[in-house]
Amino acid sequence: MTVPKKIETKEDVEAFLDQYDDFLFDCDGVLWQGNHLLPKVNETLDLLRSRNKRMTFVTNNSTKSRRAYTEKFAGFGINVEAKEIFGSSYSAAVYLKKVIEFPEDKKVLVIGEKGIEEELDNVGIKYVVGTDESYRQYPTDELLNAVERDDSIGAVLCGLDLHINYYKMAVAMQQLKDEKTIFLATNIDSTFPSKGKLLPGAGTIVGTLETCTGRKPIALGKPSDAMMDCIKAEKHFDPKRTCMVGDRLNTDIAFGSRGGLGTLMVLTGVDKEETILQKDDNSFAKPQYYADKLGDLVEILNQ
Amino acid sequence: MTVPKKIETKEDVEAFLDQYDDFLFDCDGVLWQGNHLLPKVNETLDLLRSRNKRMTFVTNNSTKSRRAYTEKFAGFGINVEAKEIFGSSYSAAVYLKKVIEFPEDKKVLVIGEKGIEEELDNVGIKYVVGTDESYRQYPTDELLNAVERDDSIGAVLCGLDLHINYYKMAVAMQQLKDEKTIFLATNIDSTFPSKGKLLPGAGTIVGTLETCTGRKPIALGKPSDAMMDCIKAEKHFDPKRTCMVGDRLNTDIAFGSRGGLGTLMVLTGVDKEETILQKDDNSFAKPQYYADKLGDLVEILNQ
Repeated sequence: MTVPKKIETKEDVEAFLDQYDDFLFDCDGVLWQGNHLLPKVNETLDLLRSRNKRMTFVTNNSTKSRRAYTEKFAGFGINVEAKEIFGSSYSAAVYLKKVIEFPEDKKVLVIGEKGIEEELDNVGIKYVVGTDESYRQYPTDELLNAVERDDSIGAVLCGLDLHINYYKMAVAMQQLKDEKTIFLATNIDSTFPSKGKLLPGAGTIVGTLETCTGRKPIALGKPSDAMMDCIKAEKHFDPKRTCMVGDRLNTDIAFGSRGGLGTLMVLTGVDKEETILQKDDNSFAKPQYYADKLGDLVEILNQ
Repeated sequence: MTVPKKIETKEDVEAFLDQYDDFLFDCDGVLWQGNHLLPKVNETLDLLRSRNKRMTFVTNNSTKSRRAYTEKFAGFGINVEAKEIFGSSYSAAVYLKKVIEFPEDKKVLVIGEKGIEEELDNVGIKYVVGTDESYRQYPTDELLNAVERDDSIGAVLCGLDLHINYYKMAVAMQQLKDEKTIFLATNIDSTFPSKGKLLPGAGTIVGTLETCTGRKPIALGKPSDAMMDCIKAEKHFDPKRTCMVGDRLNTDIAFGSRGGLGTLMVLTGVDKEETILQKDDNSFAKPQYYADKLGDLVEILNQ
């Protein structure tokens, strides 16, 4: 395994940029940290655009649709189009519609937020539960007794749900007991970074359904191959001329490596330089390149 | 491994009863199914009492204290005293108080229902969260930002919580990130039988904290050795003269076998005769005795 190369000189930057036409970006920990934009991010994205690089922003956050996510970018003063964004909710919708050709007469039971519903609406797939207020209730005996399997439901799709409750778990469980019901997760990140704190992630919500049914979902976020397949199907990029940029070895870098892409790791997020330089530990994917921060690409060129 | 013996004749019943002074009973699936009392249960318990057998009713249901559980028995017309009941909440309270001598100046963060709170009250241990209404809320950004580790909390105790929500998960997660915080579960049953249906069990709730923290709790319900130790410490029974009666191989029968007790399995619950007679499968504990139902003990004697 080659030792990860740190990008430190103008020559390093130029050689790095020349190798790629497409860049896939993780967002949190790369472009921003929580609500705080990282230095020189806008300037770096401008540099890439000026060199005709194509960019795709890949996020496991399922609570926002691509449209809603463009507002998050705009809040940081970054202009992106919805089609440049690839979220795990969108990935799930593409997977249902194009990969498995989900039957038109069936519905998806959603455990999650608005982002999933918007993406299912976009591809014309019907759903139940989701943000429906009537499921945001304490599970009385009467409600639980009335929970029955509904044959019009063909899949359960679970993501981060800040409104998770016992009633929804019980409803989803009854559907999943039938092995014919497809079990999908937008992503299975166990934690979720928010304002300097780790909170329970989608994987924690998905885990409730795994425990009570003994089943494992197909996960559609990074680092799943299913998500890479969905992005490739949409973007038609050449893996050898594409670089995945991220801050986490076990999701972003593993995702890029397994997809045959180049990889750039930045040190503004979860994993640190010591970790990626542990020569003898081959238990995780290592990046080809790394930099202190994404903005270094511009800062080094302008030195 | 000896083949499980079915109790079918008067001689079988007499020989079985003569071997034991103490009987530990699982409740649901043995005495009743949901809200339906099984046949001849009262008569069988009367028989055992008339022969001076001591009985202990062992339940993993953590939502009720021993006192509240006597009311459930009374609802079926069965007279038992609180001291004859051993629930997983009581087990947790005994474990905290007697086994690990939980510090008096520390509190327990409870994810669960009233039963846990009542048993902690009984042993004089202070707690937070539990049934506190202020934690039964949607996790606004403001609430989540205010979640901080509280050094006065020394343990997280999790059981079945019908009021589980994201806010409580986030609060418990912050405490458990410090390895010094003890992590206990009343029980880890993944499902919970209710009126002919399986619902998410305590293990499903506990699993949320396992996923977001990467930690495993000490479980205090069947089939954990910790629960057997707690019962032995209270009842001082002779394992060789004690029989565990249950309907599940992987909890009740495993629990009895590992504790060195005799075992009687009844077929009115989860596992069936075919399963226990699979001669070549030694992957699970087998009962020494089995019967179609508990009431057979009386019915066969009266034939």
